[in-house]
Amino acid sequence: MSKELTSRAEDYSKWYNDIVVKADLADHSAVRGCMVIKPYGYGIWENMQKTLDKMFKETGHQNAYFPLFIPKSLFEAEEKNAEGFAKECAVVTHYRLKTNPNDKSKLIVDPEAKLEEELIVRPTSEAIIWNTYKGWIQSYRDLPILVNQWANVVRWEMRTRLFLRTAEFLWQEGHTAHATKEEAISETKQMLEVYADFVENWMAVPVVKGVKSANERFAGADDTYCIEAMMQDGKALQAGTSHFLGQNFAKAFDVKYVTKDNKQEFVWATSWGVSTRLIGALIMSHSDDNGLVLPPKLAPIQVVIVPIYKGDDGLAKVSETANDIKKKLQAKGISVKYDDRDSQRPGWKFAEYELKGVPVRIAIGERDLANGTVEIARRDTLTKETVNIEGIDSLIENLLNDIQLNLFNKAKARNQELTTTVNSYEEFKKVLDEKTGFVYAHWDGTPETEEKIKEETKATIRCIPLNNVQEAGVCIYSGKPSTQRVLFARAY
Amino acid sequence: MSKELTSRAEDYSKWYNDIVVKADLADHSAVRGCMVIKPYGYGIWENMQKTLDKMFKETGHQNAYFPLFIPKSLFEAEEKNAEGFAKECAVVTHYRLKTNPNDKSKLIVDPEAKLEEELIVRPTSEAIIWNTYKGWIQSYRDLPILVNQWANVVRWEMRTRLFLRTAEFLWQEGHTAHATKEEAISETKQMLEVYADFVENWMAVPVVKGVKSANERFAGADDTYCIEAMMQDGKALQAGTSHFLGQNFAKAFDVKYVTKDNKQEFVWATSWGVSTRLIGALIMSHSDDNGLVLPPKLAPIQVVIVPIYKGDDGLAKVSETANDIKKKLQAKGISVKYDDRDSQRPGWKFAEYELKGVPVRIAIGERDLANGTVEIARRDTLTKETVNIEGIDSLIENLLNDIQLNLFNKAKARNQELTTTVNSYEEFKKVLDEKTGFVYAHWDGTPETEEKIKEETKATIRCIPLNNVQEAGVCIYSGKPSTQRVLFARAY
Repeated sequence: MSKELTSRAEDYSKWYNDIVVKADLADHSAVRGCMVIKPYGYGIWENMQKTLDKMFKETGHQNAYFPLFIPKSLFEAEEKNAEGFAKECAVVTHYRLKTNPNDKSKLIVDPEAKLEEELIVRPTSEAIIWNTYKGWIQSYRDLPILVNQWANVVRWEMRTRLFLRTAEFLWQEGHTAHATKEEAISETKQMLEVYADFVENWMAVPVVKGVKSANERFAGADDTYCIEAMMQDGKALQAGTSHFLGQNFAKAFDVKYVTKDNKQEFVWATSWGVSTRLIGALIMSHSDDNGLVLPPKLAPIQVVIVPIYKGDDGLAKVSETANDIKKKLQAKGISVKYDDRDSQRPGWKFAEYELKGVPVRIAIGERDLANGTVEIARRDTLTKETVNIEGIDSLIENLLNDIQLNLFNKAKARNQELTTTVNSYEEFKKVLDEKTGFVYAHWDGTPETEEKIKEETKATIRCIPLNNVQEAGVCIYSGKPSTQRVLFARAY
Repeated sequence: MSKELTSRAEDYSKWYNDIVVKADLADHSAVRGCMVIKPYGYGIWENMQKTLDKMFKETGHQNAYFPLFIPKSLFEAEEKNAEGFAKECAVVTHYRLKTNPNDKSKLIVDPEAKLEEELIVRPTSEAIIWNTYKGWIQSYRDLPILVNQWANVVRWEMRTRLFLRTAEFLWQEGHTAHATKEEAISETKQMLEVYADFVENWMAVPVVKGVKSANERFAGADDTYCIEAMMQDGKALQAGTSHFLGQNFAKAFDVKYVTKDNKQEFVWATSWGVSTRLIGALIMSHSDDNGLVLPPKLAPIQVVIVPIYKGDDGLAKVSETANDIKKKLQAKGISVKYDDRDSQRPGWKFAEYELKGVPVRIAIGERDLANGTVEIARRDTLTKETVNIEGIDSLIENLLNDIQLNLFNKAKARNQELTTTVNSYEEFKKVLDEKTGFVYAHWDGTPETEEKIKEETKATIRCIPLNNVQEAGVCIYSGKPSTQRVLFARAY
């Protein structure tokens, strides 16, 4: 397969897909809408998981595991949730295959092995989890329950894109149970902060924190908090959500607890999740026409060393220094790959690691050895410089921090540039079409107006930012009074 | 729920189930045969995962992720594999629900959303993975592929038991591709050694390494290597398997590579896996009538500290010392819980952590403070002693190693005691019924004899041990000549 990438200017969507496939992150599979996450892509997910898992545990959560399947009768118990997901559910109806009597080499579904009740492959686990929590919660002493699950979920989306929208994806879903409304809301907000911290400081992607409008809320939630990121094409991507579920699931599954003063009360709930979709956000935030660009904190390989040499003797000499540098960097906790394969030329390797977004490349030639120097190249700026081998471990350590920061700042500057405040619907449409990006505008607060704007412009309310400035104004669409501007954008 | 356990003597099977449920490891769910793994049980699985994952990476493997679903046409491609799993497959036939027209609060499967081709929920992933590898492998340069996947799988078993046999379970499945038969066999054996190392040195469960007879082989394998452990009731439990798959999947999915001298050859394959079943083995190897006993290397909590005090002042004094000890132990990498809840009495806590198998308990009373001592209790031997606080960190560190070793040695001694060599079928049956355990006996090597013995005694050939002594003998069943004794047992 050619390693040539489509450029962003040429076809942004194809550029994205090219990077995913050619940088060996993921690929389409034989199952409609499902992807294969390849080792290099999965390495990014493992780094994300490790970091998030630590954050969840530091905030008092434990992991558990609940069934993949949800009996239909449980699934439909919380009506709004069921309605929200019913149209995209994979349904298990049988539990056995048998040999096709007409062709012994083929199998058919055994009609005698029909399930009495169909099983839904979880699109999200509130139903099965709240049905379980019912058995775990009797009194206030059993609360809070602070549980997270790392799992696969299935949503039968009609239009899929690698990482961004796939029929099966990997995610984590936190499900907590609380004695009071206040505690549940505080948990919801805490987890939003955890997500914002992770996305900004590990993924180097700036976000806007806010609350969804009623239209965009999670099915079954009283409030959905979210973080919204901006991609290079100015479109928004919802990077994480944290839901305050009120007592909706407690009521649907009859989960009550005895309070300290011996009353029966329904339990309060939250749920929150991020998924492999974040890898899509990562790619679209930082990458360029040469390929993937990865923030050092999540890169499976942070530094690659490429030897430039002639003959076995040359390689042996260079390798001594290369392995020395590798050891020093590893001692600092930096992940290093020394690529001494003789089946590929240095130029090929340079292009390969550029495509794969390795943050720093060190090239060591025989001439360098005499000078006590090496050449280092930054993936983010594509700049090179010659540096002394002496002290290279600290230099690289600082450089990685610098790249991490630079990627964030670059994305932040783009966000600022592509964020516009508008005062009329004409201006709103013009900005969306010509400038793209985030648009702050007054809205009358009704779902009807939101729906109309969406129909006419494909822009949705991404969120009502937290701590939003309150100011009197008029809705850009209806002209009715408004108390604040909300964040609109076209979105993934 | 009462914390009283059924004793092993009373009802071994009920004792096992009691421990799983009452020690908060797992519970039955609303889905037939599927379990909920509770945080404490999942903590054990996380420790297993962490250790195994490191071992896999140290032997050159990388993680990846493949789809949950397998289209029926791919599933049936490798006939033996398909036949082996066809009778226990969950099958997805539809991708949408809709509102029941007769009852708006209910959902029904939308008959118009029938899949053109049914999807099998993976019982194992050879089919989908080899269909993927076809696209990854062109030449010898693409080999070997050394990939592992952490995933959930579904096998619709009719009789299920928590951890030991559940319709859905968590596991890892390694799938490797090689240029030569020798390399694939060597990989198969290497992973068997990794499993044996893990089960013996982390789980403290001794194993017999061997090869399965043709009857007991994985469907689709040329050879299945296994490790067999013995439970306290003398029954065998297959703890891990590593399969040499020959070229069966390469042929089924037409996966060929170009050799160095430019010939087309089919690729050689292995697969290997262990699952949450290991938690069942762990429980049944070490636990006693007081509850779970965990080997320190896998215990989510290695040390629990329980304060014994009167009033808030008393607690404050004890807590100072307790937190001090906690910090010192944590500095040694030991996981410690200080349970200072005032809602439960010390005696209740003692019983609770005994039930949960925490290896070491430290009790600190106000009187101890004056003496500079604490009381420590070992979970494995249930013995207590008073020790000086001075130097307690090293003492506990050694004690944990000691407990780990003691559990292994105890299990090893039991294995030896319950392993018998027999020379006649009468003796064979008598040992199985009266003594139980592993029985070494001559076998004529035919599947027919194996089948007859199984029918008559419920004992199966667990394995033909590696490096088995070759000796002339006669089959205990048929009287035909035999070249070696094989390992028989009744098994989980």
